[in-house]
Amino acid sequence: MNQVISTYTNHRSIRSYLDKDVSDEYIDLIVKSAQHAPSSINGQQVSIIAVRNKDTKKKIAELAGGQPWIDEAPVFLLFALDFYRAKIACNKNSEEIVITQSLESIMVGSVDVGIAMGNAIGAAESLGLGIVPIGAVRNEPEEFIKLLNLPEYVYPVAGLVVGYPKDNSALKPRLPKEAVFHEESYNHDLESIIDRYDEEISKYMIDRTNGEDDKTWSQGISNFYKFVYFPKVYTSIKNQGFDNNK
Amino acid sequence: MNQVISTYTNHRSIRSYLDKDVSDEYIDLIVKSAQHAPSSINGQQVSIIAVRNKDTKKKIAELAGGQPWIDEAPVFLLFALDFYRAKIACNKNSEEIVITQSLESIMVGSVDVGIAMGNAIGAAESLGLGIVPIGAVRNEPEEFIKLLNLPEYVYPVAGLVVGYPKDNSALKPRLPKEAVFHEESYNHDLESIIDRYDEEISKYMIDRTNGEDDKTWSQGISNFYKFVYFPKVYTSIKNQGFDNNK
Repeated sequence: MNQVISTYTNHRSIRSYLDKDVSDEYIDLIVKSAQHAPSSINGQQVSIIAVRNKDTKKKIAELAGGQPWIDEAPVFLLFALDFYRAKIACNKNSEEIVITQSLESIMVGSVDVGIAMGNAIGAAESLGLGIVPIGAVRNEPEEFIKLLNLPEYVYPVAGLVVGYPKDNSALKPRLPKEAVFHEESYNHDLESIIDRYDEEISKYMIDRTNGEDDKTWSQGISNFYKFVYFPKVYTSIKNQGFDNNK
Repeated sequence: MNQVISTYTNHRSIRSYLDKDVSDEYIDLIVKSAQHAPSSINGQQVSIIAVRNKDTKKKIAELAGGQPWIDEAPVFLLFALDFYRAKIACNKNSEEIVITQSLESIMVGSVDVGIAMGNAIGAAESLGLGIVPIGAVRNEPEEFIKLLNLPEYVYPVAGLVVGYPKDNSALKPRLPKEAVFHEESYNHDLESIIDRYDEEISKYMIDRTNGEDDKTWSQGISNFYKFVYFPKVYTSIKNQGFDNNK
């Protein structure tokens, strides 16, 4: 197994960090890796905002619903989907930007963010750093937008905490391959595979919590997905210029 | 520079493939790498459908608006955002799935697809394979959904052509770092940076086309983004169960 594949398969989220700074050289390699990711029509619909300022990080930790590792680690990278540069490109060529009226633009920007963030994660971990992705930048998106001065057509999609791990967490088991990987067409019969994974996750939780928590995967998922848990996304992304009506 | 970072920074899209199959062992490593990507709430909102059947690949090449490399390469991987397993999880726990009524679910699924696909790309390239991402699975999404038998709450986001490169394409220059990377807050003054990149891309195009094409980056972008170029996404994703009304 080469270094790329072993980096991926050893990924775990880190929520406890050493009081040790990350060098500019490493941040540069992480950003370069993210920038070289492929993007739709070479539009490069992603921006990265690095936050090292302690007060700003403290505020971000609060906005994300109370996540102390954001405060603790030296660097927070916000990944935003970005059509502001596309707007400049359209202006320059006397064209109206129309793509941002569509759901398509939100999907394209989100996928581009994902690929770029995936590269940033791989690069950071290959350098001995730890990370944890932060979806809760969408908890209070309007506040994030103000705090980091994001212009129209830019939207905060996810964050990444970066630092040196204090201790390694356990490797969390994934869904069985056959629940996720299909050959030639989608196999709809997944109930028994999910039952099997539920048992595996329940055992994993019991081990990790000394028996205090035995929640299965499907219990966790249904607890989250019986709500729209970040309900401010719909309105706040419209306020950034994404009409999402076609 | 380690193997992870050198793999990322050497990425290029390949549109010409050898007539040589990709082993099941390699596909397994690619899928394993994608599965180990982090995902929102460990929801693993991604499915991968591998297509090797020549007739199906030919049909996909057509549906994607005529992309012969899909037909030529031995493997096509469809990456779909997937809340079908979440629906099963909710059913099992007697809860109604509500997240799929929100734009939030489409964003989460698209980001998860991006991270997983980024890992698949890195893994494939680290094994000496070439890839090209295919956004045009969203050209005729309803046809794709039928062809690969995707159930409700599953949506085709992007594809990945995988094979052995016939020849390496050139490395395409990216936007200058300062157009994409911001420190502490977003820098809105990007016009002159984009002007500089436009000149660089124009020179790159002239070199690649023996002077036939001198299109700048912003000309290319504005040509695409003055339209909604995959207009069927909005309706077809509703038909898969994503109400997108909150």
